[in-house]
Amino acid sequence: MVTAKPPGTSATDGARVDARVLRTREVVLSSAVDVLLEHGWDQVTHARVARAARCSKVTVYTHWPERVDLLRDAFARVGDVVHHEPIGDLRADLVGELRAFRTALVEHRLDRVLAVLADRSEALPELRAVRERFVADGERVVRRILEPVAAGAQHEAMVAMLNGAMVYSVSLGGAPPGDDVLDAIADAVVAALESNA
Amino acid sequence: MVTAKPPGTSATDGARVDARVLRTREVVLSSAVDVLLEHGWDQVTHARVARAARCSKVTVYTHWPERVDLLRDAFARVGDVVHHEPIGDLRADLVGELRAFRTALVEHRLDRVLAVLADRSEALPELRAVRERFVADGERVVRRILEPVAAGAQHEAMVAMLNGAMVYSVSLGGAPPGDDVLDAIADAVVAALESNA
Repeated sequence: MVTAKPPGTSATDGARVDARVLRTREVVLSSAVDVLLEHGWDQVTHARVARAARCSKVTVYTHWPERVDLLRDAFARVGDVVHHEPIGDLRADLVGELRAFRTALVEHRLDRVLAVLADRSEALPELRAVRERFVADGERVVRRILEPVAAGAQHEAMVAMLNGAMVYSVSLGGAPPGDDVLDAIADAVVAALESNA
Repeated sequence: MVTAKPPGTSATDGARVDARVLRTREVVLSSAVDVLLEHGWDQVTHARVARAARCSKVTVYTHWPERVDLLRDAFARVGDVVHHEPIGDLRADLVGELRAFRTALVEHRLDRVLAVLADRSEALPELRAVRERFVADGERVVRRILEPVAAGAQHEAMVAMLNGAMVYSVSLGGAPPGDDVLDAIADAVVAALESNA
């Protein structure tokens, strides 16, 4: 971002202005994330974000003339999933990673991020790279766990079944899967892989 | 919907007005569905729907003061999934139903309907019943296929894995699963169920 330095100010004043502008950007983006995660993309309007950030609408419009740019920059501030650290036991690793993913979906509201990206990234190509980043990060560990035991179409099928079951239950089923269902998902994948042998 | 009958008109004129109003509602709702499926919920504004329906914005506002009501009535016009008719062969039935569901997601844009409902129905309780209707219809046949072979948490896990894998791949993976992945999904469920025995 380029900030115009007001004429006649010293370098120190300029640096101070820049720092203030950066701080404002930070506050606006973190407010945009809050509005998004609490109320959904529909509510991420310039007016509502300005209100949440306690700044003027003009400030928000100046930095992000389009809502999609505000959304893209806000998504860049949403952290990655805290994954399970695989220990080399297939079932335990699947259960651990499914639980970590459930926590990310439910407690860190990754479900909202994914719902917005599913809904908007077809019409807004600017968001496709954002969607790909979240999906790649969400699948990273489950792909690593399955790497030694499944390949090709079976590998793809299992990644989609594992992460798909979680996202689907939280976003459309109305409730995250309980531990019994989560265990049954891991068991099904383990049983299917054992039948390979 | 109540339509005010203009004073002094005959019963016949009144009926004619009602028919015209009903026709207008039909056209507006089918235009709202078109805008939704082609461009997403963000674009389902009174102005855009009026333009698509070639009527005035006032007409749209009169019938549906709130966007959420327009959306709810538009969703009521979206048809149910054309399901596979089970033949009693577990693998063939799963593959048949996964293909039918993929067609609904991709060709009839059920993916868009579900993405909007995932994103909006938490903030808009009016949409929860709509979401439940689509999820129940989407799962109806897969639940029937699995009924004789899985129960409890395993049944729930498999429904979420099957439908979840499809929705997830189409909406977030960026592409519907190919036939090889779709077959591998069915195979995994069949193998897991066989290990029950």
